[in-house]
Amino acid sequence: MKNPLLIYLFLSSFVAMAQVQTNNLKINQQRIQNRLLELSKIGELPNGGVSRVAYSKADQEGRAYLMGLMKKAGLAVSIDYAGNIIGRRKGKNPALKPIAFGSHIDSVPNGGNYDGPVGSISGLELVETLNENNIVTEHPLELIIFANEEGGTVGSGAMIGKITPTALKSVTQSGLTIADGIRAIGGNPDSLPKMVRKKGDLTAFIELHIEQGGILMTQNQQIGVVEGIVGIEDWEVTIEGAANHAGTTPMDIRRDALLAAAKLIVALNEVINSHEGRQVGTVGKIAVEPGAYNVIPGKVVLGMEIRDLSYDKIWKLFREVESKAREIAKASETTITFRQPFVPVTPALTAKPIQDKIIGAAKALGFSYRYMQSGAGHDSQEMAQIAPAGMIFIPSVGGISHSPKEFSKGVDIGNGANVLLQTLLALDRD
Amino acid sequence: MKNPLLIYLFLSSFVAMAQVQTNNLKINQQRIQNRLLELSKIGELPNGGVSRVAYSKADQEGRAYLMGLMKKAGLAVSIDYAGNIIGRRKGKNPALKPIAFGSHIDSVPNGGNYDGPVGSISGLELVETLNENNIVTEHPLELIIFANEEGGTVGSGAMIGKITPTALKSVTQSGLTIADGIRAIGGNPDSLPKMVRKKGDLTAFIELHIEQGGILMTQNQQIGVVEGIVGIEDWEVTIEGAANHAGTTPMDIRRDALLAAAKLIVALNEVINSHEGRQVGTVGKIAVEPGAYNVIPGKVVLGMEIRDLSYDKIWKLFREVESKAREIAKASETTITFRQPFVPVTPALTAKPIQDKIIGAAKALGFSYRYMQSGAGHDSQEMAQIAPAGMIFIPSVGGISHSPKEFSKGVDIGNGANVLLQTLLALDRD
Repeated sequence: MKNPLLIYLFLSSFVAMAQVQTNNLKINQQRIQNRLLELSKIGELPNGGVSRVAYSKADQEGRAYLMGLMKKAGLAVSIDYAGNIIGRRKGKNPALKPIAFGSHIDSVPNGGNYDGPVGSISGLELVETLNENNIVTEHPLELIIFANEEGGTVGSGAMIGKITPTALKSVTQSGLTIADGIRAIGGNPDSLPKMVRKKGDLTAFIELHIEQGGILMTQNQQIGVVEGIVGIEDWEVTIEGAANHAGTTPMDIRRDALLAAAKLIVALNEVINSHEGRQVGTVGKIAVEPGAYNVIPGKVVLGMEIRDLSYDKIWKLFREVESKAREIAKASETTITFRQPFVPVTPALTAKPIQDKIIGAAKALGFSYRYMQSGAGHDSQEMAQIAPAGMIFIPSVGGISHSPKEFSKGVDIGNGANVLLQTLLALDRD
Repeated sequence: MKNPLLIYLFLSSFVAMAQVQTNNLKINQQRIQNRLLELSKIGELPNGGVSRVAYSKADQEGRAYLMGLMKKAGLAVSIDYAGNIIGRRKGKNPALKPIAFGSHIDSVPNGGNYDGPVGSISGLELVETLNENNIVTEHPLELIIFANEEGGTVGSGAMIGKITPTALKSVTQSGLTIADGIRAIGGNPDSLPKMVRKKGDLTAFIELHIEQGGILMTQNQQIGVVEGIVGIEDWEVTIEGAANHAGTTPMDIRRDALLAAAKLIVALNEVINSHEGRQVGTVGKIAVEPGAYNVIPGKVVLGMEIRDLSYDKIWKLFREVESKAREIAKASETTITFRQPFVPVTPALTAKPIQDKIIGAAKALGFSYRYMQSGAGHDSQEMAQIAPAGMIFIPSVGGISHSPKEFSKGVDIGNGANVLLQTLLALDRD
């Protein structure tokens, strides 16, 4: 066949056949479930939950378990300076930048068995499905198991050059500092600057994750197409009044810090609810001094946060809260001050072309889907700073997470893993 | 003189002379101040305050100091089974029941030097003034220094038979149980039932005390005539919602226990302020679970109290709060439950005839005065259950008490001691 047209038609029929073949490719749901169960034994709690906090003994055991499976699956496994586990699989075209995917296996204390493990084990499953079907992608692939996601996306943060020497000194749930924790899992905190990836180093990053909210479940939908991961601004709010005797101080001369704080908590809720959109605002923490039945509170410290996909909207809402706070402070003769003790989390948008491929995969597989935002932080949030990122959500039963009661059904996990696989294959075809 | 009329006129001129004499009697203000200063050295803190918590080493030293002075003043000093110090002075008519007066010298941790000591040292001063003027009253007198007032009027409670075997086991600020504390100051907790006084055992009980509020000072008045000591009802309020992720849980499906608690705190304040009167209501304590920036609070426990001179009014106010709580719970899909973990304090009214004598004394001495209620608990509250009771307040600078900043001016203390003396003499004349 010297006729270029014939050659083209001949070759494209192979491409079409291959595409049909890969379109029919299915992951092994039972294998994912078995491995989630095996992993859940590492750091298992009597209540059915798990404590596999980053850098702990259980985390180390979990990592060893997964690295064993990754090696068996033929991946070239290495640990980077931040302790991230990276499993590489060669592509046909070594000139192409890798497509990366993955999640994390560390947990919060007294956590569950799905947040992190679902995306990690499904990533491995994807590799094995390709292996079993003798498929070699055009792009090299990287399965990344990020270190210490729950302690503030430390591993992915290091990958984009965000972890400061100061942050390395902070103590983690394991009892170790981040620096010592990184050493405990085979990294080297002194070399973090050497591992930083730049824009263009990856073709894409995709993460499959449980929703950690109740939207997919209550709306009876199978796949969440994440448009972005919300930004988070935290404020430590200090309200100072005057502590005084709860019996002898008449109501009209009190400077009750807790009463002012209560009004501020209500005001935050009203401000957040008075605008259209999916923004959320929470006061999750409160401490009162002196804190006795018979003493009017003199000082209250609140932990407050606002999240939204838009940085500007977060600050617009905060300015309204601040204005309400001024009114409350004036009326109650208290002072209310706001301080931001933590590094804010920047909102991160996922890449539209990847969203489209996730939707294409969901449609082709016959799954219902909806756009949504992620209210929680994820490694994808960091990775979105240097690569086109995509994120796939599956339903969380009861919307519960960070709890031993966290649960996602096997069939939903399988659906998510199949969407992950087809999205990756579609990206690879580009 | 056999003419009965002449005899009558002759004798009544002596009575009139004696009354003129006692009306001119004045305490020695400087001596009171000197002794307050001496007592303040026992348990002194670097910040100028004092920690002389009941049963502690400092309390024991303070008691020894005072007992020494009481003995020097010729009182027959004994310690009862509850550790109360009782100094007896004979009267002309041993058939009459004693007139008692006094206060306490124990303090709160990090407390001040006036709450308790003012009434105790002034009581001693009264005895010395009588001694120096060779006055023997008709009634026997008792100067009582009550043990452990700050820990819940334990000494006076024991005197009226209120201290239960269970209460004896509770641990005090000294680290000792009440039972062991009583032993440490020379009492015997096993014999408390033997010391109980009955109605009629005392002619009267009078207590001089600092106001612990800012009313006398801000209204520029010298003497407070206490109409009664408020009752206190405490509630532990538990609000249960659902802890959930602060990022992934939309505002409209939250069951935020802290938001509901905040609304309840505001509602309590509104209910208390919506009625005429001097009632007070306070939330002084709050604990939230799990208590993190990024978790919607699932559970809140509040410490709430309402005080008033009328028991019925306290409960009327509480019923209104309870009704608001039902509305809040319904709207927020939380549950709100009220529990009373402590023994309520019953309102105690002082005796009208004693109030009149206090006013008579204040007028005769040229002092401004006003009726008021005591918002704080006092030994007088217990004593009012078995004897006609009276209570005299003097101004607290800034309304501050239970604090190292607690202060009353020497002249105000002197005024109060003179009113105490004249009230006692008037009672003795009855």
